[in-house]
Amino acid sequence: MSDWALSLPDMLDQVWQRLGRGVADAKAPARLPVLATVSPEGWPEARTVVLRAATRSEGTCEVHTDLTSDKMASLSAAPRAALHVWEPRAQLQMRLAARVQVLSGAEAAERWARVPDASRAGYGKHPAPGTPIPGPLDYETRSDPAAFAVLILTLDRIEALHLGPQHSRALYLREDGWQGRWLSP
Amino acid sequence: MSDWALSLPDMLDQVWQRLGRGVADAKAPARLPVLATVSPEGWPEARTVVLRAATRSEGTCEVHTDLTSDKMASLSAAPRAALHVWEPRAQLQMRLAARVQVLSGAEAAERWARVPDASRAGYGKHPAPGTPIPGPLDYETRSDPAAFAVLILTLDRIEALHLGPQHSRALYLREDGWQGRWLSP
Repeated sequence: MSDWALSLPDMLDQVWQRLGRGVADAKAPARLPVLATVSPEGWPEARTVVLRAATRSEGTCEVHTDLTSDKMASLSAAPRAALHVWEPRAQLQMRLAARVQVLSGAEAAERWARVPDASRAGYGKHPAPGTPIPGPLDYETRSDPAAFAVLILTLDRIEALHLGPQHSRALYLREDGWQGRWLSP
Repeated sequence: MSDWALSLPDMLDQVWQRLGRGVADAKAPARLPVLATVSPEGWPEARTVVLRAATRSEGTCEVHTDLTSDKMASLSAAPRAALHVWEPRAQLQMRLAARVQVLSGAEAAERWARVPDASRAGYGKHPAPGTPIPGPLDYETRSDPAAFAVLILTLDRIEALHLGPQHSRALYLREDGWQGRWLSP
């Protein structure tokens, strides 16, 4: 098994390095994590998102979304999320749990200014995402800054699981300064 | 964009074909979906699982787990799950919502008999999964049939999102016979 998977600090380094690669490299596995939330009716939900930032010093990650998407309704009811990444080559699973803060309007203006034109079309669909439409393409994209939302994920826990000839599993908590502990896999 | 992504029945066919490939082919994307649940404290959780069966006629999927794993505690409190697959080549996201039934002991014996020896070691870890341990490898695997659990996921909804020059998004519900409808992406 990988040496880093037998050291608490090395395993945490791996997590942050791979999150960083996800932000920088569109082909890295951590580019497209799964974001899980709880719906207003109490159902678990999961969808792919694009990782836009990962800041180790703050213990935060960032994701962008449409303010009218169903995940926003869920986060309004329960501002909690899980972020999940599976790295096939490293055989490493990363599971992050976070409180979620939503920025929009003026608070998100600086980030909107840095969103490339091609990506802006993703925000401000009409009708709103999730609305029934008669045919598959009966919608318009509007590049609307008023529909742009930034999710700031403040991580409370990071769990890392490495699968090898033997598995190793570590849990890191913000509340104890991310020192980490081993768990039975 | 792909032709199948403009037809409700064709898009549903794609979903079931890809789930079937996941069961049959260890390298298919649907082999390793993400299973999301809600913890007893109301937090969303997500982890990779192995897809063991997908039965279109019943609208069910099957996953195996350790009876003492944290997902079991969550499913005891809220027997609901989301299953998520991202197919990079097809640019297809599949989001399934399901009620979950747990089989263990005598009810799971027939399936246990078909679990290969190499895979059996995954069940019955000591101490139980998630228990703090002093070092990364301070646990034993026991191939214990009493720890083997089968999750039967009875799907209530299937959502498919295809990303192309234009996106298309379809929602299929058990309650209307899976006929499907288009949603704004």
